[in-house]
Formats: sequence, structure tokens, C-alpha cells
Amino acid sequence: MSILNFEILKRGEKTNARAGTIKTRNGDIQTPYFVPVATLGSVRSLDSDDLENLGVQCSLCNTYHLHLKPGDETVKKLGGMHKFMNFPKPLFSDSGGFQAFSLGFGREHDIGKIGFFPGERNGGELAEEIEEKEAAPKFDPKKNLTKITENGVEFKSIYDGSWHFLDAKRSMEIQSNLDSDIIMAFDECTSPLSDYEYTAKSMQRTHNWAEKSLEYHNKEQALYGIIQGSYFEDLRGKSTKFISELPFDGIAIGGSLGNCKQDMHRILDWVIPKLDDRPRHLLGIGDIDDIFECVEQGIDTFDCVSPTRNARRGSLFIAPLSGGSLANKFRINIKGAVYKEDPRPIDPACGCPVCRQYSRAYLRHLLMAGELSYFRLASIHNVHFMLKLMEDIRESIKNGMFLELKKQWLGEAAML
Amino acid sequence: MSILNFEILKRGEKTNARAGTIKTRNGDIQTPYFVPVATLGSVRSLDSDDLENLGVQCSLCNTYHLHLKPGDETVKKLGGMHKFMNFPKPLFSDSGGFQAFSLGFGREHDIGKIGFFPGERNGGELAEEIEEKEAAPKFDPKKNLTKITENGVEFKSIYDGSWHFLDAKRSMEIQSNLDSDIIMAFDECTSPLSDYEYTAKSMQRTHNWAEKSLEYHNKEQALYGIIQGSYFEDLRGKSTKFISELPFDGIAIGGSLGNCKQDMHRILDWVIPKLDDRPRHLLGIGDIDDIFECVEQGIDTFDCVSPTRNARRGSLFIAPLSGGSLANKFRINIKGAVYKEDPRPIDPACGCPVCRQYSRAYLRHLLMAGELSYFRLASIHNVHFMLKLMEDIRESIKNGMFLELKKQWLGEAAML
Repeated sequence: MSILNFEILKRGEKTNARAGTIKTRNGDIQTPYFVPVATLGSVRSLDSDDLENLGVQCSLCNTYHLHLKPGDETVKKLGGMHKFMNFPKPLFSDSGGFQAFSLGFGREHDIGKIGFFPGERNGGELAEEIEEKEAAPKFDPKKNLTKITENGVEFKSIYDGSWHFLDAKRSMEIQSNLDSDIIMAFDECTSPLSDYEYTAKSMQRTHNWAEKSLEYHNKEQALYGIIQGSYFEDLRGKSTKFISELPFDGIAIGGSLGNCKQDMHRILDWVIPKLDDRPRHLLGIGDIDDIFECVEQGIDTFDCVSPTRNARRGSLFIAPLSGGSLANKFRINIKGAVYKEDPRPIDPACGCPVCRQYSRAYLRHLLMAGELSYFRLASIHNVHFMLKLMEDIRESIKNGMFLELKKQWLGEAAML
Repeated sequence: MSILNFEILKRGEKTNARAGTIKTRNGDIQTPYFVPVATLGSVRSLDSDDLENLGVQCSLCNTYHLHLKPGDETVKKLGGMHKFMNFPKPLFSDSGGFQAFSLGFGREHDIGKIGFFPGERNGGELAEEIEEKEAAPKFDPKKNLTKITENGVEFKSIYDGSWHFLDAKRSMEIQSNLDSDIIMAFDECTSPLSDYEYTAKSMQRTHNWAEKSLEYHNKEQALYGIIQGSYFEDLRGKSTKFISELPFDGIAIGGSLGNCKQDMHRILDWVIPKLDDRPRHLLGIGDIDDIFECVEQGIDTFDCVSPTRNARRGSLFIAPLSGGSLANKFRINIKGAVYKEDPRPIDPACGCPVCRQYSRAYLRHLLMAGELSYFRLASIHNVHFMLKLMEDIRESIKNGMFLELKKQWLGEAAML
């Protein structure tokens, strides 16, 4: 496990929270950390100078999308993702399985924006990914774009309808071409609507592919195994045991995570206490209350597109000091007419460059007028906000003040 | 004329080119200069930090658009455009007449993207402005949205179809609310398809409004008069005499500038030799060859959306050293498949932050994938390129090398 080291600096006194450092070949990640997602090699609307100025410690790019566009071979020829996107710090990549499968069940089961998944990463995000691509209208959105076998998944590109095949070996090859630092084992992410029998079979496939991923992966990349089993306690138990007994460099917890936040925390309680001290990644979760709860349960890293996606839709983060609460999800919607002449920054308590320089009125104007600059400025604020929150959480764990910080944000309503 | 001073530092030896400094209450503008356009208070896809980093000396915002969105009264309440868009340097504003009228004739005469106007600012840009607005589909694109009288123009908002009225007094009020530093007299910009009789009448209106603009404008703002007369020599002569005899702080030359670049230069030759040493602005022109030719004829400042609009469409500037020429309009189209794996920067001879950090392959990927970051990076390059060109032109005038520089760019084919 020399390719990745994880040092736990401090453990929570009354919680399973931990503050640590993940050491990769391209630098360290102070945890707990929220990893901004660069699906296609760009944290949407930001460039690498922005990431540097925001102090982003690492990012996560998407195997499925980059394999299709511009193609992982192209990325390899251009020197790998670090060079391609001009980002020298640690990069995660997912395995591609999530998109390949989810574009199947997400359509078959009509899982849309209401989100059966916490964090709306899964069905919701995929629906959006499809929406946002010009190619999307070519396809029947109800049509399943995947064919799953024991070997892998055959899937249709959302970009041009061409057929592709992904299995553990291909996923490892693609991730090797991308040259990310932390890669994910190939897994099947099941739908929350899949029954026990299907989920058990699928988990078995994921376990077989976990072993193959270990066999085929580029040994210069750190490999995380992914625990599946949906919302079935015994399956989650089996998957936790199986995956954690393999020599992965870290452990990721995959969906489905049930149908509501309570389900998710129950599932994490089945899984996390059985894990050792390797780093733990929770895939696709990013709501502020979830971050607090999951850090408390022992998660080290998160990834989610929510800060940038929310920004593009007008949802801008505000801290409790500025009126943020569980009730408003710590957000204002800048489209509101009430902000038309509001000279205050998005969040008066925020020190980001956008809050230092622009008014709510100006940002609202840019959004209402469709000015492209809005999307970047809003994304800078939301990403800064999330990273500052993670920094505060980290400090609070080190100072033994985590539960106080959590209470300050979530109030007495805190779930756990 | 103390509100604006223009110092001519050097005149061309064999040309009418001049290098100078326009001094405004918010700073100096070294000329000749290309003014990046911030139609709605944002140079499209850039923010004020970008403008600062690019060394942008001044910008130009749009009275018509800002009057409608977010409203000039709103801008005033928020402290004026400088504060609103966080841009402390000199700001031009146009009079709004151009859009108000052009949205009339541009539709009536079906003047679209092929552009009867050099620089494609006029019909072309307007068509694009309409296209880009969500509100546009509400309107019949062939329907004239304006009613012109001797007093002013009644026009329908392209945003919501509401009726508005603009005359010299209102235009001066709106520009006062915007608090720009250099404002434009209210004028009628005629269509190249308007006949002599209509153009003569229209010019008379423009002259009346010029006097009213002088009467009503905020005396803390520098006011430029606008010469009209279309492509009729005697009308241009009359308009030049009339406008230049009024105590404007500077002189702008308005369209129509004929049907081709030759027409434009002929028109400038009718006008410029009769002008005194006040600063001269050419509205809406921005092609590189035009810049050289018009600087040679004695123009001091230009404004045009072309660098950012071209960027968004994939047209990225390259200098002669990197293969740029009149034939390719000093551009590559980054969409070309030939750039898919091209590791070179957009322009290997360029020192902009985008060329220092990203490959053609990456930028092409971002554009093809619809990533928002593309638009900003491409715009940064194109604006940087244009400003660097202006700096080189300025230096060349000071060094007596302007014609050599022009030849280096345009070759022997140079028009004048």
C-alpha cells in the first residue's frame, strides 16, 4: 500500500469522525474533504487557475465520460489528465461503471430529478447529464442503454449512440490512460428499485470485478474497492467483509444508499464500524447536513457535483451566520426578485473573491440576463463555501469541537 | 472640455495614425485602443478580475440593454456601473439609439448574419443578441419593433415585449444613471438600404438630437457626438461639419458604413480629414485588417464584440508568426478535427495565461463537450490577443514603424 498512505491525525471523542492526511504521489489531501468533481476534465465553468486560487486539494474526473470524449487514448497521448487539464494535484477517477449502469436503470426505472438517491447524484445527476448534452435528444430517454452480463456492461454512448464495452480490465486500462492517482474498482451500482435477488447477484458480480480490478490495475495508481449491497443489511455486511479483506488502498461506499437520508445513515452504520483504518470515500454525496452526519459516522472524502450544479441553477450557499439553515438547505435562490437591488454579497460572512467584489444584485442580473460570467462566479462561491466548511470541520475534529460545530449548523435537529 | 483631455503623443509620418492618451475622471486610455464591450455589464464570460489581469484599460456598456435589464434606475441605486460591475476604469456607454433603431430596420430589412456592416456589429450582432435572449421567440423576427418620430423612438423590449420610449433627454438621463465616463449623443443609425431622402431626414434628426444631448447631458460625463450620413458623400460632409462644430468632447463615426470594407474606408476619408484633434471613435468595428486600416486613417478607439463572440464560436486568434493571415482572418477554428490531439497552445507566439497553460486539444475538448470553462478561456485569449495587437500598434506609431507592422500583418495586400 505504499502508493497511498493515510495518516489519521485525530479521532473524534464521542464520534467516529477522524481528521487525517491521504498521501498520494501527487500530493496530500487533508481530510475530511469534499472533492470537487471535474466530470469531463473541468470543474464546470472553472479553470485550473480557479482551482488553485480556491485551494482545491484534489479533484475527481469521470471515466465513462472521458472514455467517450475526448477518449482516454487521446488523453494519454496528451500526457494524462493532470497535464491535459493543467491540474498537478491528486486526481480521483471513478470506474465508469456507475454511469454505464445508471444510464440503464436510471432510464428503465424512470429515476429522475426527484432522486431516489441522497445528494441527487445518481438518477438526478444522470438525467441532468443527459439533458445537458446536445446528443441527448437523439435517444429515447426511457430506453435502457445498457446490456449487463457477468463479464461486464455493453452500453450506448449518450453522445453519439455508438456501442461500447466496459469490464474490470477495460476500466483499469482507461483509468491508467487517464493517469489519475486514486482509481475505483469496476462495480455495478444497482437501482433502489432492484429486488433482493437481483441485488445479490449484482453484488457477486461487483465482488468478482473487484478481484479483477486488483489484478489488472496499474500498480502506480492507488485503487479503492467499492462496497455494494444496496439497502439490504446482510448484503451490505457480506460486501463490507469481502471488499475490506482485499488489499485495496481505500474503500468506497457505493449506491444505492436507499430512498432517504435515514436509509443512508443506517447503511453507513452497517458498513463503517466493520472497516479498518484505510481511507473511506462516499460516492456522490454532497448536501451540507449529509456531510456533517457522514463525517460523524467516519467518512473521509466525498465527491458530488452539487456545489457547481446548484450554482448554475441560482442556489447559492449561505452560512448560519447569514441565515443559512437546514430549512433553506443553507442556500438562497438568487433568482428571487427580493435580490434585484440587494447590494450585499451572496453571503456577508463569506470571504471568497466573489463575495468580496460583487453584490447579489449584480449576480442576479448576470443570471437573469444569461451572462456566462454568472456561472463561474456562482461556482467559485459555492466551491469556496464547501471547502471552507470542510476546513472548519477538520479543525473542529482536531480541537474536539466537531459536535459543537455540527450543532451550530444543523441545530438540535441533528439526526444522529 | 475639462472633463476629458486628449493628448496626442505622436503622429504617423506618412499616415494619419496617431498615438495619444485620453484622460478621463476614472483614468487614462492609451490610444489607439480597442475597447472590449460589456453589453450588459460583463465582457461576456469574463469578470472584473479577468479584465484587471488582461490589463483592459476601459470598457463599453450598452444603454439599450441596461435600461431594460436590470434597469438604469437599479444600476443607479447600486452606485452606477463602475461599482455594479466592479470595474473602476473608464467606461463608455453608447446612446441606445443604435439598438432601438436597428432592432427596427434590422428586422424590416432582414439584415441578418451576413452583415451589411463591416465588423458584423450591426445587423449581425443584433440578430445574435435576439437569438441569445430567451425572450426572443416571443416575437416575430420580421416585425419592426420601433416607431420613429422627430422626437425619438418608441421601441419594444426584446426581453419582454414591453414598450419603451427613448429620446435625447432620456438617453442622457439613462447614461447619467449608468454613470459611465464617456457617453454618446443620441442618434439614429440608418440602414444601408435606406435611400438618400430617408437618410437625409434621419441625419437632420440626429443633428437635432446632438444639440439636445449637449443640452441635457450630465456635465460630469464626457459626451461624444456621432456623425451620420450613411454612404452619401454630401451627407457625410454635412454631418461632419455640423457635429464637429458642436462642443463635444470627442467624435464618433456611426453606421451605416456602406456595404463593404472599401465603402467604409471611403466614408472615413470623407470624414476624418475634416476633424480636429478631439478623440475619434469608430463604432462597432473590430476585424484586424480594419483596425490597421482605420488606425492609419486616424481612428483612436474602436469597440466591437468580435473577440468574445468569435471565441464563443471557436474562432481563436493567431498571429502571423503562428500562421495568421488575411486569408484566414488571423483565426483558427478550434472545432477542427485536426486539433483533437494538438498539444500546442492556441497561438504558440502568444503569452496569455491560456496559451501558457492549455493545449488546443484541451480547449477543443471543452468546446465539443459544451464545458462552460471553454468560453472564458477562449475569450481571455482573444481579448488578450487584441489588446496586445493594439499595444504593438501604439508602439509602432511611436517608433515610426506603423506601416512596417501593418505590412507584417496584412502583407502587400494592404488596402491603402
